[in-house]
Amino acid sequence: MAMPSDLEISRHTVLRSLDRVATDLGIGDHLVEPYGRNVAKISLDAIPERDHAARAKYVVVTAITPTPLGEGKTTTTVGLGQAFHYLDKRAVIAVRQPSLGPTFGIKGGAAGGGYAQVAPMESLNLHLTGDIHAVTSAHNLLAAMLDNHLHKGNALGIDPQSITWRRVLDSNDRDLRQIVTGLGGRADGIPRQSGFDITAASEVMAILALATSLQDLRERLGRIVVGYDYDGRPVTAEQLKAAGAMCVLLREALKPNLMQTLEQSPVLVHCGPFGNIAHGNSSIVADRIGIRGSDYLITEAGFGADMGAERFFNIKCRISGMVPDAAVIVVTVRALKAHSGRHHVAAGKPLPEELLAENPDDVLAGAANLRKQIENIRMHGVSPVVAINAFPGDHASERQAIVDVAADEGVPVATSTHFTEGGKGSVELAEAVEEACATSSDFRFLYGDDLPLADKIERIARQVYGADGVDISPTAARQLSTYESCGFGTLPVCIAKTHLSLSADPARKGAPTGWRLPVREVRASAGAGFIYAICGDMRTMPGLSSFPAAEQIDIDSAGQIVGLS
Amino acid sequence: MAMPSDLEISRHTVLRSLDRVATDLGIGDHLVEPYGRNVAKISLDAIPERDHAARAKYVVVTAITPTPLGEGKTTTTVGLGQAFHYLDKRAVIAVRQPSLGPTFGIKGGAAGGGYAQVAPMESLNLHLTGDIHAVTSAHNLLAAMLDNHLHKGNALGIDPQSITWRRVLDSNDRDLRQIVTGLGGRADGIPRQSGFDITAASEVMAILALATSLQDLRERLGRIVVGYDYDGRPVTAEQLKAAGAMCVLLREALKPNLMQTLEQSPVLVHCGPFGNIAHGNSSIVADRIGIRGSDYLITEAGFGADMGAERFFNIKCRISGMVPDAAVIVVTVRALKAHSGRHHVAAGKPLPEELLAENPDDVLAGAANLRKQIENIRMHGVSPVVAINAFPGDHASERQAIVDVAADEGVPVATSTHFTEGGKGSVELAEAVEEACATSSDFRFLYGDDLPLADKIERIARQVYGADGVDISPTAARQLSTYESCGFGTLPVCIAKTHLSLSADPARKGAPTGWRLPVREVRASAGAGFIYAICGDMRTMPGLSSFPAAEQIDIDSAGQIVGLS
Repeated sequence: MAMPSDLEISRHTVLRSLDRVATDLGIGDHLVEPYGRNVAKISLDAIPERDHAARAKYVVVTAITPTPLGEGKTTTTVGLGQAFHYLDKRAVIAVRQPSLGPTFGIKGGAAGGGYAQVAPMESLNLHLTGDIHAVTSAHNLLAAMLDNHLHKGNALGIDPQSITWRRVLDSNDRDLRQIVTGLGGRADGIPRQSGFDITAASEVMAILALATSLQDLRERLGRIVVGYDYDGRPVTAEQLKAAGAMCVLLREALKPNLMQTLEQSPVLVHCGPFGNIAHGNSSIVADRIGIRGSDYLITEAGFGADMGAERFFNIKCRISGMVPDAAVIVVTVRALKAHSGRHHVAAGKPLPEELLAENPDDVLAGAANLRKQIENIRMHGVSPVVAINAFPGDHASERQAIVDVAADEGVPVATSTHFTEGGKGSVELAEAVEEACATSSDFRFLYGDDLPLADKIERIARQVYGADGVDISPTAARQLSTYESCGFGTLPVCIAKTHLSLSADPARKGAPTGWRLPVREVRASAGAGFIYAICGDMRTMPGLSSFPAAEQIDIDSAGQIVGLS
Repeated sequence: MAMPSDLEISRHTVLRSLDRVATDLGIGDHLVEPYGRNVAKISLDAIPERDHAARAKYVVVTAITPTPLGEGKTTTTVGLGQAFHYLDKRAVIAVRQPSLGPTFGIKGGAAGGGYAQVAPMESLNLHLTGDIHAVTSAHNLLAAMLDNHLHKGNALGIDPQSITWRRVLDSNDRDLRQIVTGLGGRADGIPRQSGFDITAASEVMAILALATSLQDLRERLGRIVVGYDYDGRPVTAEQLKAAGAMCVLLREALKPNLMQTLEQSPVLVHCGPFGNIAHGNSSIVADRIGIRGSDYLITEAGFGADMGAERFFNIKCRISGMVPDAAVIVVTVRALKAHSGRHHVAAGKPLPEELLAENPDDVLAGAANLRKQIENIRMHGVSPVVAINAFPGDHASERQAIVDVAADEGVPVATSTHFTEGGKGSVELAEAVEEACATSSDFRFLYGDDLPLADKIERIARQVYGADGVDISPTAARQLSTYESCGFGTLPVCIAKTHLSLSADPARKGAPTGWRLPVREVRASAGAGFIYAICGDMRTMPGLSSFPAAEQIDIDSAGQIVGLS
């Protein structure tokens, strides 16, 4: 029998009152602000009020290097969260909010899938409580105040050529990537080359995700660098007197959103910073709320363990001070086969026939990627767990190959069938996570604050990516030196590279060796609190395909949404 | 003693549970969806469910031609709504949602003021439930799908030069008025001249305000014309397969927002279409909900009676089928003095000294404007009421001059001191409104659907504005003929002219005669359901001033908002 669509499954689920979901976490009614029937915001007062409660085990869900199709990290996160109640344990899930751009573009929604979903999926995928829109507003207010400052005489002496602050929209809109603004007459501003990024790529989004409190948010916003003056000194949002108003626009958005899974497990949905030019993790405040009042906090990090998990450890945990206990590495048979280098997987196309045939050798050939990602977790002193996200086309011998690799690495492993079975299908995985969390964490950062920026980049490249070294362009070297002299040298670094390879070349599968990381350019997210190094072409504004998902989305005659998946 | 700030007054007010506010209107809990603590959305099921309930008297609040400072129409609307409970009557208020752009620009908030406010003013002024952002998303999705259609081969044969669909943001951002998009390489779209308007100017906003149901919204979105093909045929959002997804983005935004006044009177806040290029009224669905379950529905229309009220009668009521009972014309001593033509009032500057001196003759000299606006109400068969919005600097003789003019016109008149006294200060006004509503309405449209478009424009110009005739440019004449042949000839017209004069010249005060209305250009809002004629320079994207209001807005050390007014 064919499975019903995600939307049908979601719509036919009975949800609990969110007040009760919150109460189970020790979050009193006075801290719960309903937004519609099945979403609530949680006041940040929940952090100090529950400070005495027992601390949950802190589990990050990451993955091997994914194919362009994704390997089901969100469904696994949800399934794992749902599984714990079969073990009589309470678990909270923390995930990012999906962007509207991709939802109406190629991707469809991002609520999980099958019987491992955050519900109601329409709310999650459509605006939710407006946090992303608040980021758009705050970001663009700063852009307008910056251009207005130039228009009104440029008292700060900002060099227009040095401006790095663009505008943002939560839309897949390639025509806004490169634009000229300020055309028309004198009253219509000053012509400049600029452009729009998708809101997830906004530094304001990264700031919202990394702020530890409202006051910290206010200070980080003030530290945003929009460009430089004619003497090369950074010009900040504080100097433009924009940071206060931006913070006011974001005041409600800083509160995490409480939802639940199809099986009524609590989910904190909050923020969605990009996974390449930013750190790709949900918010610190959501994790600070989720870490009290339950047994396990399951938080998801973007892309593979070299990407999201590395930033989770070295950026997010560095700022939050929170210590992870275990990391789940999601792996699929199909992705390991692709990592053999013998198959080509493309987004929006069916899997190649040869890849579907039983072939455990391909899995073993691709397992180098899994072994490297296990190493990447262990080098941070965190216990890894391998989760095989089961697909109907998997062959038993292929799954066994993964189990053998994990055994060889000494890592607990479990197959998870959450997509078709919900939490029940992830019970083994939950047991493996329990086992991994039982050993006490020896968490450590990959580098100290004081290591020079170039050395931080090199350390990540060599140790996490397996590169032979780093080639820093003259431009990037100049920028690094500028940032060191601006006082940004103690910040952690985020490396913006493809998520489709451990290397900077998306075509190189497995665990490539004998390559060097090319750093083309370096930029500062001084407000968010990291420097990012651009290695390869990073697209910060997606486009629409020939047949956008939006074309299928509509309401039916009863006013119900159709076509959202 | 100085009055506390609007924000202080608002913050120190005790509000009722919105469930109780709704219950008083006969709106059951199952129809109320809370959004935060003091805002709720009302399900459109409230319309059929309460169809049997008694119909409220339907009162529109309009004004004389205002000065650039505004004459306190929103405060009067709120004060009047608050006053009715002193007469043991129940009243509901319907107002527009303020834009973020002006809130952070020059204007500050738009929640009313003093003791006649919608509360909490922070919620009203900041995002509310995200409806305006949903309009931004839906509008820009269509823009992205349109440009994507060009990029992917232009199967519909759209003439890029004919495209009228721009993008929108709820921001005061002059540099986005005129831009070139699609620069960069081939992958970055096709270069075109375009621009952004503020979201309030989006046709999608007008559609949301004029839709009578979700299905009607869906159909109107489909009828949006984005440009023309090479054969001159209109290309619609339906043809671009965007209308369904746009409707899905707007599904929650179509539900009106319930709030309350400082005195706990119910307020429906919904939509904020522009007052010149669009019809400038809050939504039909809000009025359809508010018209049942109370004694009076007080709804506000934008700008003077020649603008918002004329469109209220001939566009909004034509589409809704609702019949108004009375119209309140808000007048101030200062505005009538300005209409004498002897004083110059500018936004952001103090009133001129001479204007403040006692001078009832100036009031009488400016009264021609009031008399004409009274006539504009009466020509629609609706009973006018004059509301003198009291200011501290008014002299008794000046107010008496207004009373005398109203008496001469046979119109009930009352002075209203709601700003300093709240609802108690508007009791006399409420009594005058009761009196006006006691006579049965003889409501009629100014023109029938079948009158040709040019004649509709001329009828408004001559009868409502007092023009000697209309000068239609060759471009406008061509456009009118195109629209007639596209089948848009039966639509009502909206005349986009300055709101600062009955004429098309903002400098001409009082009730100017001996002038002709110059129609430069005509555009179609085929989805919203009106044609608009552009007379003069209409700015659809505001700019920021030298000292934007945003610079004063911040959070304090306790996390409270400061500087919002």
